[in-house]
Amino acid sequence: MPHTIEEIAQALGATALGAVDLTVSGVAEPAMAGPDDLALAMKPAFADQLGQGRARAALVWDGADWQALGLKAAIVAPRPRFAMAGLSAMMDPGQGFAPGIHPSAVIDPTADVAADASIGPLTVIGPRARIGAGAVIGPQCFIGADAVLGQGAYLREGVRIGARVRIGARLIAQPGATVGADGFSFVTPEESAIERVRDSLGDQGEITSQPYARIHSLGNVTIGDDVELGANTCIDRGTVRDTIIGNGVKFDNLAQIGHNVVIGNDCLICAQVGIAGSTRIGNNVVLGGQTGVSDNLFIGDNVITGGATKVLANVPAGRVMLGYPAMKMDAHIDTYKALRRLPRLAAQVAALQKAVFKPGQSD
Amino acid sequence: MPHTIEEIAQALGATALGAVDLTVSGVAEPAMAGPDDLALAMKPAFADQLGQGRARAALVWDGADWQALGLKAAIVAPRPRFAMAGLSAMMDPGQGFAPGIHPSAVIDPTADVAADASIGPLTVIGPRARIGAGAVIGPQCFIGADAVLGQGAYLREGVRIGARVRIGARLIAQPGATVGADGFSFVTPEESAIERVRDSLGDQGEITSQPYARIHSLGNVTIGDDVELGANTCIDRGTVRDTIIGNGVKFDNLAQIGHNVVIGNDCLICAQVGIAGSTRIGNNVVLGGQTGVSDNLFIGDNVITGGATKVLANVPAGRVMLGYPAMKMDAHIDTYKALRRLPRLAAQVAALQKAVFKPGQSD
Amino acid sequence: MPHTIEEIAQALGATALGAVDLTVSGVAEPAMAGPDDLALAMKPAFADQLGQGRARAALVWDGADWQALGLKAAIVAPRPRFAMAGLSAMMDPGQGFAPGIHPSAVIDPTADVAADASIGPLTVIGPRARIGAGAVIGPQCFIGADAVLGQGAYLREGVRIGARVRIGARLIAQPGATVGADGFSFVTPEESAIERVRDSLGDQGEITSQPYARIHSLGNVTIGDDVELGANTCIDRGTVRDTIIGNGVKFDNLAQIGHNVVIGNDCLICAQVGIAGSTRIGNNVVLGGQTGVSDNLFIGDNVITGGATKVLANVPAGRVMLGYPAMKMDAHIDTYKALRRLPRLAAQVAALQKAVFKPGQSD
Repeated sequence: MPHTIEEIAQALGATALGAVDLTVSGVAEPAMAGPDDLALAMKPAFADQLGQGRARAALVWDGADWQALGLKAAIVAPRPRFAMAGLSAMMDPGQGFAPGIHPSAVIDPTADVAADASIGPLTVIGPRARIGAGAVIGPQCFIGADAVLGQGAYLREGVRIGARVRIGARLIAQPGATVGADGFSFVTPEESAIERVRDSLGDQGEITSQPYARIHSLGNVTIGDDVELGANTCIDRGTVRDTIIGNGVKFDNLAQIGHNVVIGNDCLICAQVGIAGSTRIGNNVVLGGQTGVSDNLFIGDNVITGGATKVLANVPAGRVMLGYPAMKMDAHIDTYKALRRLPRLAAQVAALQKAVFKPGQSD
Repeated sequence: MPHTIEEIAQALGATALGAVDLTVSGVAEPAMAGPDDLALAMKPAFADQLGQGRARAALVWDGADWQALGLKAAIVAPRPRFAMAGLSAMMDPGQGFAPGIHPSAVIDPTADVAADASIGPLTVIGPRARIGAGAVIGPQCFIGADAVLGQGAYLREGVRIGARVRIGARLIAQPGATVGADGFSFVTPEESAIERVRDSLGDQGEITSQPYARIHSLGNVTIGDDVELGANTCIDRGTVRDTIIGNGVKFDNLAQIGHNVVIGNDCLICAQVGIAGSTRIGNNVVLGGQTGVSDNLFIGDNVITGGATKVLANVPAGRVMLGYPAMKMDAHIDTYKALRRLPRLAAQVAALQKAVFKPGQSD
Repeated sequence: MPHTIEEIAQALGATALGAVDLTVSGVAEPAMAGPDDLALAMKPAFADQLGQGRARAALVWDGADWQALGLKAAIVAPRPRFAMAGLSAMMDPGQGFAPGIHPSAVIDPTADVAADASIGPLTVIGPRARIGAGAVIGPQCFIGADAVLGQGAYLREGVRIGARVRIGARLIAQPGATVGADGFSFVTPEESAIERVRDSLGDQGEITSQPYARIHSLGNVTIGDDVELGANTCIDRGTVRDTIIGNGVKFDNLAQIGHNVVIGNDCLICAQVGIAGSTRIGNNVVLGGQTGVSDNLFIGDNVITGGATKVLANVPAGRVMLGYPAMKMDAHIDTYKALRRLPRLAAQVAALQKAVFKPGQSD
């Protein structure tokens, strides 16, 4: 997808400098850039690497002396990292899914597929499902009965959307993303050990052995606009009400969202995060990779968790958390510094005990 | 699926009160209930919400003054949470998979499919596979050669069952559940660093670089009756003997069960749990979300682990565990309380040292 | 697959003893072995179990008195665990995928599929994809546009390889393995709270609410020779450069490899491991199950992490790590011993404080 430096700068709201009609067809790291690549040299640290590559043009940091760097043209953006969003969208070659409806797709005659939607090979669209305008449904996808997929959806290969799931505009779903599995909800005829442990914080009382009866998931999943679902990520249906995902929420791969969970707007849910049933997550929350959140909790707006944080209690808005169990990040750092010195501290206490309580003795 | 209050109460072994011939077609939380919904008001805390909704009938707590709550009919169950199992089964609209064998399914002529089984579009059934009576195999599933699936199985879209896997009656498998991948078993020509670290608890000895040779998985997976598999959950085959799952075991999404693992009956394995190779799990065990269990361990009957517990050693029957490494839950809570006070404790020890060992000095 | 004891021993470079023309058709654990099984009795501990089974031949430990154990024939290998690699390969019945190209496969006419490759039912091969000699692509797989799969690849059911991914020779991919999903990379118009938290180690500054713009993944995934991918494991594409996996790397199930990650040769990445974006992993590294590694880190050669280790900082070559945050394994063991004694230590300090600072007082 060749573009001139001028075109790119205009699209990004950035400034083009030098030979602005020079054409590039890709982007590259500075040291690996060829003559037709736009090098990404967004920090002064990349200056040396530009010399190792063969780029004639680069996206440079504000104030870079691009001519001294040997470039014929440059683009200067006020926040180059943000410019990458627009630039990468322009340069993305995509997955090459063909337009139109592939003859091998199995589409129920009652499904309502927009005229300009494209449906990949071996995809199944169930009864009364609705596919919005401009949607691209990749190969081997499944869209269940009565599911609704808004305009401009883009589904990679093997995405599965269960019956009655409702999704807004511009969904992006990576391979194997799964929406609308049944929730994990089981109940025993009599009070169970788990119920007693929750009450007692550790005592399961008299041990009994009961089989589990299944609580079916009657709720659906409702997802807002501009959501992205990672590969093999799972979002379960609600038990009675819906599991609800707000607008602009981005999920990375292999995340698990339990039944009845409610997530606000503009959250980042990183890879392998697990959110247990009925937990509510506010707006603008960031859950780092492998974060776990127990069931029935409330995580306030703008909370951020570091990698692998395990949240076992409610978190007020604005907190930055780390650890297992989760603590405020600064408290966690202090605590773990102290933890590393703990064996030495124990030795010091032993010495003190000897000095104070057995002052006359020696080893 | 409309039912009268009378019918529902009878099915649940519960008591119907008031206008028992009133018909409901769904269930809802009290505040969101419409006039045709049975509201779920199973605790006194829901009394106010009933007033916000428009329910005419509700499943209420024992002793509720249902008439004062504005209801025309009520159902009283001794354990309402358990009643939800039966109620939700009655009200589940299901996934709408069509009966019969879809013409796009690829079924090996040597497969033995029960006459009343239904096979979804684009599903593959391998040579000599056996599908029991009443089974519903959803779209895009895969059943490998010589696999056996008992009566009444219900497989959602995209479930994969490998060759020779044997599964009992009434399996429920959520989308993307995967049974019978090969185990993760590799060996180096000479003793490896991992083997030395296990012996020495941390010292890998002289560092060597060896490629890995693959140990093929010759064992199968054997699964009992009434098992549920979560979305994208994986159960690996055994190396020589089978990986074995007992009756009534329920797995949530994205769980990982390694080769040779043996799980007893009536266990709950929550989302993102990992059980490493050759570990044995007793009966009635509950592993909370993101629990990890190392390889070659034994977890006794009725053990319960809290969320994200990392089990690095055997756990006797009946224990309730939490933390990384796993401790008894009450010890864990005490320890972590002390941990939060650790920076203060270190300051106290420093003050003591000064007072005891340098008593004449001041700051 | 029947073989004589002689044939097996020759193939393994081991020694056959006794009735070397005796034929076995499978392998089994000693207690479960039938007369046509080769029992695996690789340690003296298995001697008793041999008596419980009906094996006539066994793979025995060096120095075993096989005749006294009631065997008619035996194989002695210098390192029996390593011999299992060759033995299990000989005895593996495989998945029974049929040779040739199944008529239901959807293969783009521009794809270049080796004449002897086999393509399973309902598999999709995209435009200009190249499939090497001897490859076996199982049922319901997806190979994207311009993807390259080397000779001898073996893909189980439902594997997904995205556009432009390049994979070397002899890939083994378990069901649902997913290569080439887009990376998880988003940016806000202004500096985000996450960027500030990283700088400040916990302080997110003034709270703002910004939507996320997507950075498209322009890089690909490049995978070396002899790699194995576990079930439902995900390897994301790079942002600008490729995500790179070396030769001989083995991934277990449900692992997550972020964009731009570079992994060296001969690493073992166990189940549910997560490696965040742009992290580099050396050669011969072993990451235990549920290990997490933060983004932009460097893990040196020969590093080993125990189960559930959470790596938040660089790790020098040769280290053995455990815990969250990761510490050297021996330090971790000392620290956690001290941690378990911490409540007692706190009581000791309280007693010291009383004795030193309030010496005249009693309770």
